[in-house]
Amino acid sequence: MEVKSITEQKSLLATLAPGKRTRLRRLLFEFGPGNGTLLLLPIDQGIEHGPRDFFPNPASKDPEYQFRLAAEAGYSALACQIGLAEKYYPDYAGQVPLILKVNGKTDVPPSGDALSTTNASVEDAVRLGADAVGYTLYVGSPRQDADLHQLKGVREDCDRYGMPLVIWAYPRGSAIDAKGGRDSFYAIDYAARMAMEMGADVVKLNFPKYPGEKDKDSPAPYDEIDIPISDAVGHVVASAGRSLVVLSGGSKTDDETVIGHTKTIVQAGGSGVIFGRNVWQREWNEALEIIERIKETLLENVRRIP
Amino acid sequence: MEVKSITEQKSLLATLAPGKRTRLRRLLFEFGPGNGTLLLLPIDQGIEHGPRDFFPNPASKDPEYQFRLAAEAGYSALACQIGLAEKYYPDYAGQVPLILKVNGKTDVPPSGDALSTTNASVEDAVRLGADAVGYTLYVGSPRQDADLHQLKGVREDCDRYGMPLVIWAYPRGSAIDAKGGRDSFYAIDYAARMAMEMGADVVKLNFPKYPGEKDKDSPAPYDEIDIPISDAVGHVVASAGRSLVVLSGGSKTDDETVIGHTKTIVQAGGSGVIFGRNVWQREWNEALEIIERIKETLLENVRRIP
Amino acid sequence: MEVKSITEQKSLLATLAPGKRTRLRRLLFEFGPGNGTLLLLPIDQGIEHGPRDFFPNPASKDPEYQFRLAAEAGYSALACQIGLAEKYYPDYAGQVPLILKVNGKTDVPPSGDALSTTNASVEDAVRLGADAVGYTLYVGSPRQDADLHQLKGVREDCDRYGMPLVIWAYPRGSAIDAKGGRDSFYAIDYAARMAMEMGADVVKLNFPKYPGEKDKDSPAPYDEIDIPISDAVGHVVASAGRSLVVLSGGSKTDDETVIGHTKTIVQAGGSGVIFGRNVWQREWNEALEIIERIKETLLENVRRIP
Amino acid sequence: MEVKSITEQKSLLATLAPGKRTRLRRLLFEFGPGNGTLLLLPIDQGIEHGPRDFFPNPASKDPEYQFRLAAEAGYSALACQIGLAEKYYPDYAGQVPLILKVNGKTDVPPSGDALSTTNASVEDAVRLGADAVGYTLYVGSPRQDADLHQLKGVREDCDRYGMPLVIWAYPRGSAIDAKGGRDSFYAIDYAARMAMEMGADVVKLNFPKYPGEKDKDSPAPYDEIDIPISDAVGHVVASAGRSLVVLSGGSKTDDETVIGHTKTIVQAGGSGVIFGRNVWQREWNEALEIIERIKETLLENVRRIP
Amino acid sequence: MEVKSITEQKSLLATLAPGKRTRLRRLLFEFGPGNGTLLLLPIDQGIEHGPRDFFPNPASKDPEYQFRLAAEAGYSALACQIGLAEKYYPDYAGQVPLILKVNGKTDVPPSGDALSTTNASVEDAVRLGADAVGYTLYVGSPRQDADLHQLKGVREDCDRYGMPLVIWAYPRGSAIDAKGGRDSFYAIDYAARMAMEMGADVVKLNFPKYPGEKDKDSPAPYDEIDIPISDAVGHVVASAGRSLVVLSGGSKTDDETVIGHTKTIVQAGGSGVIFGRNVWQREWNEALEIIERIKETLLENVRRIP
Repeated sequence: MEVKSITEQKSLLATLAPGKRTRLRRLLFEFGPGNGTLLLLPIDQGIEHGPRDFFPNPASKDPEYQFRLAAEAGYSALACQIGLAEKYYPDYAGQVPLILKVNGKTDVPPSGDALSTTNASVEDAVRLGADAVGYTLYVGSPRQDADLHQLKGVREDCDRYGMPLVIWAYPRGSAIDAKGGRDSFYAIDYAARMAMEMGADVVKLNFPKYPGEKDKDSPAPYDEIDIPISDAVGHVVASAGRSLVVLSGGSKTDDETVIGHTKTIVQAGGSGVIFGRNVWQREWNEALEIIERIKETLLENVRRIP
Repeated sequence: MEVKSITEQKSLLATLAPGKRTRLRRLLFEFGPGNGTLLLLPIDQGIEHGPRDFFPNPASKDPEYQFRLAAEAGYSALACQIGLAEKYYPDYAGQVPLILKVNGKTDVPPSGDALSTTNASVEDAVRLGADAVGYTLYVGSPRQDADLHQLKGVREDCDRYGMPLVIWAYPRGSAIDAKGGRDSFYAIDYAARMAMEMGADVVKLNFPKYPGEKDKDSPAPYDEIDIPISDAVGHVVASAGRSLVVLSGGSKTDDETVIGHTKTIVQAGGSGVIFGRNVWQREWNEALEIIERIKETLLENVRRIP
Repeated sequence: MEVKSITEQKSLLATLAPGKRTRLRRLLFEFGPGNGTLLLLPIDQGIEHGPRDFFPNPASKDPEYQFRLAAEAGYSALACQIGLAEKYYPDYAGQVPLILKVNGKTDVPPSGDALSTTNASVEDAVRLGADAVGYTLYVGSPRQDADLHQLKGVREDCDRYGMPLVIWAYPRGSAIDAKGGRDSFYAIDYAARMAMEMGADVVKLNFPKYPGEKDKDSPAPYDEIDIPISDAVGHVVASAGRSLVVLSGGSKTDDETVIGHTKTIVQAGGSGVIFGRNVWQREWNEALEIIERIKETLLENVRRIP
Repeated sequence: MEVKSITEQKSLLATLAPGKRTRLRRLLFEFGPGNGTLLLLPIDQGIEHGPRDFFPNPASKDPEYQFRLAAEAGYSALACQIGLAEKYYPDYAGQVPLILKVNGKTDVPPSGDALSTTNASVEDAVRLGADAVGYTLYVGSPRQDADLHQLKGVREDCDRYGMPLVIWAYPRGSAIDAKGGRDSFYAIDYAARMAMEMGADVVKLNFPKYPGEKDKDSPAPYDEIDIPISDAVGHVVASAGRSLVVLSGGSKTDDETVIGHTKTIVQAGGSGVIFGRNVWQREWNEALEIIERIKETLLENVRRIP
Repeated sequence: MEVKSITEQKSLLATLAPGKRTRLRRLLFEFGPGNGTLLLLPIDQGIEHGPRDFFPNPASKDPEYQFRLAAEAGYSALACQIGLAEKYYPDYAGQVPLILKVNGKTDVPPSGDALSTTNASVEDAVRLGADAVGYTLYVGSPRQDADLHQLKGVREDCDRYGMPLVIWAYPRGSAIDAKGGRDSFYAIDYAARMAMEMGADVVKLNFPKYPGEKDKDSPAPYDEIDIPISDAVGHVVASAGRSLVVLSGGSKTDDETVIGHTKTIVQAGGSGVIFGRNVWQREWNEALEIIERIKETLLENVRRIP
């Protein structure tokens, strides 16, 4: 089950309109580790999980912590909601690119019918000088009808303004839970393709928990497939086609896992990583240290320059 | 139970506005097998089923495979969603016409209340140089109210821009399941008429599974009707009136069935076929071979030149 | 329980805006039997019931059958959905007026919460040269909130363009089923008033099935009322006030019932009839014959010239 | 539990914009009994209850009956839906002011989740020469979210066009039924305040059924309060603040109750009454008689001149 | 678990657009106690609870009572709905700033799926000369999808017009009830952050009921945390970041609690208090007295001048 080599493909930026190409190149080449890689800092846990994520490192409760970290450690971009963008980003304008997340929600209610509605617009992103827009798509949710239609508007505005579209493609909802769960290979692979077909320029995915106990609930051939995790990640990257792929780490884990995942994703043709809690739940100097290691890993292992 | 001969009718393009006629003629006469036939390549399985459809032929996971196939083998048009259209179609612009599918969904949640919301617009289609727009209508779904109203907007925009409207008319939902099922003669026949009355220029239908065990659950006279499958297809084509009809093959089957269905549909007055997995789940040369046979069958058996 | 004589009222067209008056006069005086009567041909069974209605007379499956019948037999107007209007009406433009039905639905799902959403607009009607717009209102449905609000938009556009509004006023839904049913005197009487108050220029009603077994479930005084059917029809016409009333026949019945109902409705002050299956489920010559009898009956018995 | 004297307040019209003041003064001083009182005739029973309300006085089935009554007996205004306004009001334009009711519904489905959607607009009211707009708000309904948001649009248009807003403030729905019912002192008092805070210029309320058996289910202090009905009405009027209050009579009752309620409301600081069935379910001369008595009662007892 | 000192931060007004800064400074420095503090008077209990709140002090039923109190006692601003703003505020224009609450609802139905829809617009606020807009966000409600999307529109309009946005951030709904309840430290802390991230310039929160019996149902670390209430309030203020925080008192309590809470909030870095029933459920002179004490407490204890 060989996947066609991705590195032989044409430039992934070739079909992008000028505005999108200009902005995306900033993230890929002018900021962050560069050379076509992406190192993104998400600051959306405050709404997605609430302030409980800030207790391990109390300093992180002040958004200044993450903003300064993104700028000083040299991230490709940071991603946050409108409130932070309006009140904290101005001090860092021009020092680190902004990805404005335009939808989000609390995790208080159960997620069986997950839907994340927009709280900001692509016009807000343009006004604030953002270089990309972020949208969370709950792939396979029973409310995908509302989700996909909402995404249409965001995607159209991105086309209108030449704004790159980063899709957080999250399998979610009662139906995916019954088919292997949100982190299964099946679910992540589907999400990658879905985001690409919906117009993502960059797809953000969770690292698949593979192999897992519930994989046997997935549709064929995922229920019986047996490949190394690196190949699984390769499949996922291939499913995203010409959309760039960044993988995330989820909750805080040990350094070797962080670095290992980083290596796996770029070796599989992905463009980089998006690490939040794994970075800013550390003290300042420790955070800088792990960031440095991640950047080196990205540059040493990157295979596909978009 | 004779159906009035269709070939005596006036030109099916006669009532089309100039823009629709110009674009539809490209598909019928300038590209593909020609002589008023249609050979369409759908590339929407990646969102409708997920990447699992690509495993039988790993090369097909890269959309390039299908795009190149459509162009090189000489299809009348290919049909895909906005993401593929923006990132893959530019390389094939002018080489094979594009049908932009403007709605779609994953098959993760159950389809009892199926509704497929729009993720792209007719304006997107115009901007991308598409020659037609595709819309999936779930005929008889409990949410037909939202579906039909949404279709109104798409149809009006098609009228505004002179863009041909291809309706994927799929009986779907808990209510149709109780009346013989989505592939029954009753269901397909109803879907054909519904699409035509809603303004379809071309209707895409599944080949009816007829006769079937559940037909007795269909309303009269479908519950007791007993005619050859060729006549059933003739009824379906007649129900679509002046809308052109293409039938699809569904999941991969053997060559003789593919060719047999192709013959049946055009002999019944249909305009052609839309084969996806039956074609691109094959190796490149095998795919070219079966396409060639389909084209010959279309040209040898076509009865109605629109 | 005498109802005030309707014939003493002022002209029913007196309060209509110029555009409405111009167009409605065409139906009442220039086409069809004339002298202020209405003979309408509905061609919406293909979506409301599906093609099963065409089996009794296979020729009727081709919409040409009904269109030609409407034109040659001299109907006041035909009523159909956008698809037929765009693809079949152009050949008959100017030969028989068009009523564009702007909403509709299949009968596949149960009708407990019936709602028929718009699939075309009043602007479509203007563009196509229609002389009226048709709207199906499900009186008393649990979803009347969406229905009435949708009707607002249609009615406003009718006022804007001077387009007569014909309301198909159908009691429907679980609540009306519990109060005597959709064809009870109570239900039809309510529907007539409702349509008039919502702005109908013409109200289309089903002939009440009265007296019926379930009338005792209707609110007082309908549960105990005991009047001849002709008086009941008189009440219904009176409830519609200055809106013209046409009654329909429903499924095919015998000739004497058709003629009897026709006589009853115009003698009660109604303006005419709308017969579909009762007409086009017959062979061509039989159809012409019964139409001729209906026209004579209308002209001989009409009491109220609007 | 003394309520601050209302008569000491400033003019209730003082804060109204010119258009609202102009139009409202017509109702209060130029038409009807005058001297700042209101005598309103509602003609919306045909949709809210259906034609069954017309049986006690068959002549009332023809809307002419109510329109002529309003004009000849000298009402402050009549209130009706768009259909009646378009087809019957033109003959009485300038003879009696029009309040255009912009929402309404049938009473066929149960009212546990009551919501009345708009079927006409404030622009319709302007176009028809109306002097006010009427809106039914179902206070406390589980669907208040849709109701209040809809009212926003109507209120904004009233502000835009200088059109007085009359809110029919009806406690309704399963939740209010559990707290004492729709006619309890608690419910009516809440409704009065709600309508005022939502921007009503005039509030229409039902006369509270007080004291009642279910009052003990109301929140404190309503569950234990024990005051004369006149004081309760005083509370209600006070709750409406600077919005004028008219009370209605509901279904037909005896003359002394009609006159008694009329006296009670204006002595409590209200502006008048709105009597429908209590008036037009009578023969013409009886209707004129009771109207005359009501008008005298209003003028003799009015305490607050707005 | 130390929270980074807030007083070292830059000016909280620094990133505000000119219109927002101009208006917010009026509340902070020109009206009320001044020196960067906020003393707000809410007058929305009439719709949120109904007139029952006015019984303890009958004079308070007349909105004049609260308006005069706000102006004479020297409040920073009063907050009310559109009806009061239009009919009562004009007399106090320029004497006390207005915060127009743009959404609200009755408390009649249960609040398991709480959603408060808009009944007024930011444009209304501009037209009425308001200095801020108030929005109630039900944090964690199962209907947060509708809530957050609605807030988007309000926030965008605030950005467009330079209107400060005050968010009443209320944890609400069945899901939060299951996680410690609406007044838990967890819930209030989450609400503070959520409001800030959604674009609040000022966040209005309820004083947390902490420690409470149900805290153990909250997610970690809130289920086991054990800090003084003053630290908890400090956390909450920190969670709101650069959004100013005002805390409310809820139902009427004793004077020492009122003053104690006031001290706690400003010592923790908050900007002030919003007391409704605790103030206007008192006789006029008593109300003035407690207000005077609150103002002194604010000025004596304020730590953070924005």
